[in-house]
Amino acid sequence: MIIIDNLQYANWSERIFRQMNEGGVAAIHVTIAYHEQFRETVANIEAWNRWFELFPDLIFQGFDGADVRKAKEEGRTAIFFGFQNPSPIEDDIGLIEVLHRLGGRFMQLSYNNQSLLATGCYEDDDPGITRFGKQVIAEMNRVGMVVDMSHSAERSTLEAIELSQRRIAITHANPHWWHPALRNKSDVVLRALTLAGGMLGFSLYPHHLRDGSDCTLRNFCEMIAEAAERYGVENLGLGSDLCQDQPDSVVTWMRNGRWSKDMDYGEGSVEQAGFPDQPAWFRDNRDFSNIASGLADVGFNTSEVAGLMGGNWLAFYDSSFGAQSS
Amino acid sequence: MIIIDNLQYANWSERIFRQMNEGGVAAIHVTIAYHEQFRETVANIEAWNRWFELFPDLIFQGFDGADVRKAKEEGRTAIFFGFQNPSPIEDDIGLIEVLHRLGGRFMQLSYNNQSLLATGCYEDDDPGITRFGKQVIAEMNRVGMVVDMSHSAERSTLEAIELSQRRIAITHANPHWWHPALRNKSDVVLRALTLAGGMLGFSLYPHHLRDGSDCTLRNFCEMIAEAAERYGVENLGLGSDLCQDQPDSVVTWMRNGRWSKDMDYGEGSVEQAGFPDQPAWFRDNRDFSNIASGLADVGFNTSEVAGLMGGNWLAFYDSSFGAQSS
Repeated sequence: MIIIDNLQYANWSERIFRQMNEGGVAAIHVTIAYHEQFRETVANIEAWNRWFELFPDLIFQGFDGADVRKAKEEGRTAIFFGFQNPSPIEDDIGLIEVLHRLGGRFMQLSYNNQSLLATGCYEDDDPGITRFGKQVIAEMNRVGMVVDMSHSAERSTLEAIELSQRRIAITHANPHWWHPALRNKSDVVLRALTLAGGMLGFSLYPHHLRDGSDCTLRNFCEMIAEAAERYGVENLGLGSDLCQDQPDSVVTWMRNGRWSKDMDYGEGSVEQAGFPDQPAWFRDNRDFSNIASGLADVGFNTSEVAGLMGGNWLAFYDSSFGAQSS
Repeated sequence: MIIIDNLQYANWSERIFRQMNEGGVAAIHVTIAYHEQFRETVANIEAWNRWFELFPDLIFQGFDGADVRKAKEEGRTAIFFGFQNPSPIEDDIGLIEVLHRLGGRFMQLSYNNQSLLATGCYEDDDPGITRFGKQVIAEMNRVGMVVDMSHSAERSTLEAIELSQRRIAITHANPHWWHPALRNKSDVVLRALTLAGGMLGFSLYPHHLRDGSDCTLRNFCEMIAEAAERYGVENLGLGSDLCQDQPDSVVTWMRNGRWSKDMDYGEGSVEQAGFPDQPAWFRDNRDFSNIASGLADVGFNTSEVAGLMGGNWLAFYDSSFGAQSS
């Protein structure tokens, strides 16, 4: 079984890299930009390059599906870069190809707010994909960077699914019918996404879970079983949104960037401003086996469990990261 | 015979790309930065990406020796990126690996002036490789970016040859004993360079030629024959420094960048401020066959001619562009 977690943003350290290996995680899509502009994103890539140089026995940079298989074979973890905001491309469409060359594989068209490309999930109104956004989707399609609509609003998401000539993803979110967080996705969106071959990664961020940190493994897996019936098991995987070892200042940065002088709490609130506790059955990268067991317990067969744990993402990687065939 | 020109900085156009193909040029090392900082260099890469997208039948980006062979086989030209100044890495050693990933394969440690790394050939005094310079050479060695000392001063060049654990290059210059231009290299430097396995690319820039634009093909090839006796034919190739179709404003940019309010004329002078005319036997990329004939005429055998025209650079590419083996 190949394990892929299609979203994490931990406070990276050797300890965490060792946990990835211990947990048998073959690949992780890591966020390297929330609000960073191009040069700042490159500085984050430089920091990753340093980790790759320092810990070659544990991690290496992933560029395609073959790197995931290599990581599995060698007991290491392949790290794939992604951006939760289009800020790294600034207003410059040429930066998409440059960032793809540097290993950028996923980019959200918006993060909570309106961007130059699309509307975020916390805006009041959603006018859909912008003129620049349409150009960017075509260019991302051309070079092989995946459109990610995890933090985008409904209309923009539906339009992105329609406009993209290649399959898109919602890398980390859950169905709104299971837990009505603003960040979770409507049945309409999830049907359109998966009907077009797109992938949904289930989030383990407590604000996205029914009962938050107290959500049970059983309940989480029953939700996946219901989603598999509605959307097809082959379009589903994990995108845990794990933010291990992060100080609360980081969630403040995620939510407020440089855009607000007032405090924005995202899925949190004044009372719950920081990072909530992870559920006891998914504390870090060593706990993926719990989820695999939980999926088997709610009736998924071995092959379905393997697909949900990483096989489906691997197939998606294989078809998504190369240049568009003309 | 594989033809490689290891330095050009033309005013790129479809017409020039077609001439590369017509001339059977398999690979060209093109300058993409004279004084540009990182973000400006990336903008130049974006411009090249656009040309690669628009003219895929003529050119593509080269990353290693295999791409040169592919270009030869397909009748196209592989374009390799290089920098004539370390300005693209600014003061940030992490940018070396980033730029290598983007295809940067050669970087001069200085361009005429003192840089953060080394001294340029027009400075009065040369204190040698700086503290930062030593770190940069080690990092270039590690990732596979070639140290180029074409515009550097004597002591810095000798120290770079000594410090570098991998072979370095002088991509575009001629021997000072043949034509005593400041930019041409002393016998001491050329012996040290080639003794360490380094490569010299002969320049066809008229200011580097005996008799300038009137230099004869015979004279140029006799100089190469003498150099082959002194330094070994296997360490020699071409680096024409062709600046085709460039307006004079570009040579002003090369020489003055943003560093001088007074006019600097480089190898030129007030009377000869702009680009001099190319010799009649080497006007553009269609004329490499003239040089191959000229080399045969002065006594090189077929295999030596093939080496000088590109085979030697190809062997150097094969051993230089990958990560350092530990």
